[in-house]
Amino acid sequence: MWCMTALTPHHDGSPLHVSDLAPSLGDVVTVRLRVPVGYAPLTAVRTRSNPDHEPEWTDAVRVGSAAGWDWWEAPVTVRNPRHGYRWMLQHADGTVEWLNQTGIHRIETLDAEDFALVAYPAPPAWLYDAVMYQVFPDRFARSAAADERPTPEWAIPAAWGDPVNPVMPARSQQFYGGDLDGIVDRLDHVVGLGANLLYLTPVFPAESNHRYDASSFDRVDPLLGGDEAYVRLIEAAHARGIRIIGDLTSNHSGDSHEWFRAAHGTPGADTAQYYCFTDDGNTEYVSWLGYPSLPKFDWSSPELRERFVTGPDSVVARWLKPPFATDGWRIDVANMIGRLGDVDLNEEVRRLLRQTMIEINPDTILLGESTNDAASDLQGDGWHGAMTYPSFTRPVWGWLSEPTGEPYLTADGEEETEAWFFGQPVGGIPRYTGCDFAAAVTRFTGGIPWRVRLGNMQPLDTHDTGRFATNAAPGTIPVAVGLAMTMPGLPVVFAGDEFGLTGADGESSRTPIPWGSETDAAVAERLALYRDLIALRRAHPVLATGGLRWVHVDDAAVAFVRESAGESALVLAARGDVDVELPAGAVIGAAGADAVFGDATLGVADDGAVVLSAEGPAFAVWMLPGVDAPEA
Amino acid sequence: MWCMTALTPHHDGSPLHVSDLAPSLGDVVTVRLRVPVGYAPLTAVRTRSNPDHEPEWTDAVRVGSAAGWDWWEAPVTVRNPRHGYRWMLQHADGTVEWLNQTGIHRIETLDAEDFALVAYPAPPAWLYDAVMYQVFPDRFARSAAADERPTPEWAIPAAWGDPVNPVMPARSQQFYGGDLDGIVDRLDHVVGLGANLLYLTPVFPAESNHRYDASSFDRVDPLLGGDEAYVRLIEAAHARGIRIIGDLTSNHSGDSHEWFRAAHGTPGADTAQYYCFTDDGNTEYVSWLGYPSLPKFDWSSPELRERFVTGPDSVVARWLKPPFATDGWRIDVANMIGRLGDVDLNEEVRRLLRQTMIEINPDTILLGESTNDAASDLQGDGWHGAMTYPSFTRPVWGWLSEPTGEPYLTADGEEETEAWFFGQPVGGIPRYTGCDFAAAVTRFTGGIPWRVRLGNMQPLDTHDTGRFATNAAPGTIPVAVGLAMTMPGLPVVFAGDEFGLTGADGESSRTPIPWGSETDAAVAERLALYRDLIALRRAHPVLATGGLRWVHVDDAAVAFVRESAGESALVLAARGDVDVELPAGAVIGAAGADAVFGDATLGVADDGAVVLSAEGPAFAVWMLPGVDAPEA
Repeated sequence: MWCMTALTPHHDGSPLHVSDLAPSLGDVVTVRLRVPVGYAPLTAVRTRSNPDHEPEWTDAVRVGSAAGWDWWEAPVTVRNPRHGYRWMLQHADGTVEWLNQTGIHRIETLDAEDFALVAYPAPPAWLYDAVMYQVFPDRFARSAAADERPTPEWAIPAAWGDPVNPVMPARSQQFYGGDLDGIVDRLDHVVGLGANLLYLTPVFPAESNHRYDASSFDRVDPLLGGDEAYVRLIEAAHARGIRIIGDLTSNHSGDSHEWFRAAHGTPGADTAQYYCFTDDGNTEYVSWLGYPSLPKFDWSSPELRERFVTGPDSVVARWLKPPFATDGWRIDVANMIGRLGDVDLNEEVRRLLRQTMIEINPDTILLGESTNDAASDLQGDGWHGAMTYPSFTRPVWGWLSEPTGEPYLTADGEEETEAWFFGQPVGGIPRYTGCDFAAAVTRFTGGIPWRVRLGNMQPLDTHDTGRFATNAAPGTIPVAVGLAMTMPGLPVVFAGDEFGLTGADGESSRTPIPWGSETDAAVAERLALYRDLIALRRAHPVLATGGLRWVHVDDAAVAFVRESAGESALVLAARGDVDVELPAGAVIGAAGADAVFGDATLGVADDGAVVLSAEGPAFAVWMLPGVDAPEA
Repeated sequence: MWCMTALTPHHDGSPLHVSDLAPSLGDVVTVRLRVPVGYAPLTAVRTRSNPDHEPEWTDAVRVGSAAGWDWWEAPVTVRNPRHGYRWMLQHADGTVEWLNQTGIHRIETLDAEDFALVAYPAPPAWLYDAVMYQVFPDRFARSAAADERPTPEWAIPAAWGDPVNPVMPARSQQFYGGDLDGIVDRLDHVVGLGANLLYLTPVFPAESNHRYDASSFDRVDPLLGGDEAYVRLIEAAHARGIRIIGDLTSNHSGDSHEWFRAAHGTPGADTAQYYCFTDDGNTEYVSWLGYPSLPKFDWSSPELRERFVTGPDSVVARWLKPPFATDGWRIDVANMIGRLGDVDLNEEVRRLLRQTMIEINPDTILLGESTNDAASDLQGDGWHGAMTYPSFTRPVWGWLSEPTGEPYLTADGEEETEAWFFGQPVGGIPRYTGCDFAAAVTRFTGGIPWRVRLGNMQPLDTHDTGRFATNAAPGTIPVAVGLAMTMPGLPVVFAGDEFGLTGADGESSRTPIPWGSETDAAVAERLALYRDLIALRRAHPVLATGGLRWVHVDDAAVAFVRESAGESALVLAARGDVDVELPAGAVIGAAGADAVFGDATLGVADDGAVVLSAEGPAFAVWMLPGVDAPEA
């Protein structure tokens, strides 16, 4: 349990506390620590860095007080591309405290959980203004042209209103025929929602509805409308101020891929070195989790590197260039790329990917799928952020779910009543408290530099998961969506959530969008919820790039502030009834604060303590003044 | 705080729980979990591995119960050279628990803190039977021959009984003239103490008393007796069953080094590529922490790699071969090697070092100095263990010290009263409780595979630190020495500790050994303490390779068991008075147990609870039966 009700010293990677979020090696960055006035007599405050894995200390000076906080300031010279540092507080009574990304500690702390400055090239600033909308093309929308296309041999055709069949082989072959012009037709929906970054799961030809088994990277699937439709979509999106990123399987291709077909059984083929063949005849090979349809790439191959990444017309480069000019990539199974047995080329490959992208167009983003603990790969050298679940999505599910127990069908056609939980065989959805929620968020972001954390996708669900709404405890959907929009990270809406869709697992959640239902009362209410919360996020940059400071955590409720010099936001998220008092100084300027979302009351006592009350579940946001900090 | 009084599920890397501590890639290892009978109804127990960073699960089966514990067993296939795994316990009430190297958790856990199997080549078994004795040659013993040698130009001669002068330049130039034949003369002392592994700080020629500024790696300092004396020492040690390892500065040399002299100012020199020169004329260069006398090596240089490591007569190889045939290396500043700015070749270099050693003589050990959080470098690929302080030495100091406040002189000749604490400017020695002690040990071993943890040096102090006794709280020295000998890790005695020497910091602790004082009552008592505890360690292999299970942790005392199939040891360490009850089942077979060390009482209640009582400080060890486990 990780509950907190007291005011503690604070630092995070935001501009209030760090003078430069995109420093170069050798730069001196000024870092600032805030200590509540009256916290404890301190005899010294220092930073402890770890350049080249050897400690280096700087002394902080107290630069003044403002609004109940003492501010300390210290220089940190950036000596490594990921330069970790922590704070040491030396108390007059001989006690020592350490502050790192997991909080305040009486004992020494781990290097991996230091705050960190990142001197690798920064992502474009637009990443931090983005609200992502994820589209699974087969299920989003069909244009009129789709009716003209023949159904491919592998597909089991479905009409738009048919239920999703999650049993194999329909699981991957049921084919609704959504296409890229269908998306163009519905871009106004995306605009209306307020999202400004479209992420499409793969659009390359394949032999499944999900297309993660690419048969080519050289053209867009004709079933989606081909290259021309892709250009139309990208241009239409850009014209509306919406950026768009693709999805690339860099760990494997499909076994129908032209490279694999040429190499399979043909050791001398040009592309034979691209894959992990294990016999002389190139008939046996390593594949993703043992599925023969997904042969794994061999990233030790210079030929593959050139064709895929570094060459003049590489896969990675081609789709970033006109006429496509997409705005980046989401990389599938990024956690496994280049890893096999005693070989680990992951760092090399992700750096190579990003380097190439920078050469083509630095105004692009690179996100890596890493569905579990992503910290070791997320130090800023390649991925700008991860599609990852333990740092937000699973904690939200754990805290705000109440499994229905309704049966659903597995891939094998078996009835299952235990709620699906990200493929983890843990007996359904774990029961987290608010303290567990905050502890899990803290644990799985503690090893990630602030700048990279801001780029982490923050979905409630995706095409690979059940839909959150399926097992949401009554009344918690606004809480969950609210957290996705107000916590540090890249908010993601998986298309259909805003229509109130449900789905027990990653396949049954791939429901065709029920266009036309927007006027149903329940759908309209859900749409309004999304519109309002996305609008809130986009209207207040502090929700994207402001600091994060927890001000209250208990089993029923959490409250935090996002802070910047210009404005702050106080956020309350509660599963149960809440009546909590934040100590004086925890939030400033709350008297008469502007409640911009939610039904909760805020009162300010004479001593400055702030009382928040609500019937749970509740989600509320108040806008507060910016943080008053002394001049240096 | 990390206190515990309850019985919890247990696993560690010891043979009771892991079928093979030196598996190869692809091997199936059987791992076992123990759950106290009656802990909670469990519906499933599983392992969760993370091969290639993607989760893989295996089901455990309950194989039976014995002595109050249910045993579960599961197969784990070793897929990466460092193969992490954790346990998942699914409770009948829907709760989930995770068990990893930091303990039991309600929420998901970090990959870095998984248990881990290691498929890199294992160290020789003798490492786990070793008790190390560290010698600083200038201060250990002088042979008669030393009188014949001229004092070198750089040196400030001192007589054996002179006090150590910690002020520069004497700090590094005060020269007592201890030599290798002096050590030969005193080997019986080492034998008598029971140590069986001699670690000598550098013996290469240099221009300081510590010799970390080597002027050559090709010969032993003539001031120590030269190569011949080194051979005499090694042969004499081996004849007594004592192994011996050297100390190698692989991060830098001295600026008097023959390689550096040839290159400095001479860009075309053969050895110019060995160093990090920063100007065209080879006059400016990177050095260790900016000290110009210690120019840093450039490990991107193939020439350096060959000369130092891989070549037929490399530095690393030469001293492992006859006539020297040393038993391994301790590598100085291992944490910084190959690291500078955006370059990090550390992994490559440490693997290269070990690979070469295996080719020369696999029956050698390789330890790396890494004085802070060493986890990232300690995954078993190179170092067999680290000379590191946060996982044992600093926690012991924090818990068992009581700074004297006596002034001492710094390098600058300033009077200082704040106790030295490993160069950390934290206001003296932090005040740890017993809970803090256990928390710190757990935190800094949680990221290190069990097998590597066993190789970590476990000193109370070294030539780089003050001596523990200097600030030891009254009565705590047996507690501290006892912990060094009974916790998992390589026990280390820094020569002189057994004579009761003190010293405020790393320089003033380099006191010449007061030979002849052995009969003084206080010295005799201290010597007996060391002899007894070393004998205990060596008589009971369970203290080296047995599992570690904490059975009680509070602010005043900690108790743990080291466990194997053959025998177990119950260890109590207390700073304050202690009267604790271990719940029934926590230790088995304690009734009438054999107290092999210390003054404490052990009673067994009717229900099996064990009561330990002592006046603090106390250190006691009881030998218990081996752990009774069901057959598979």
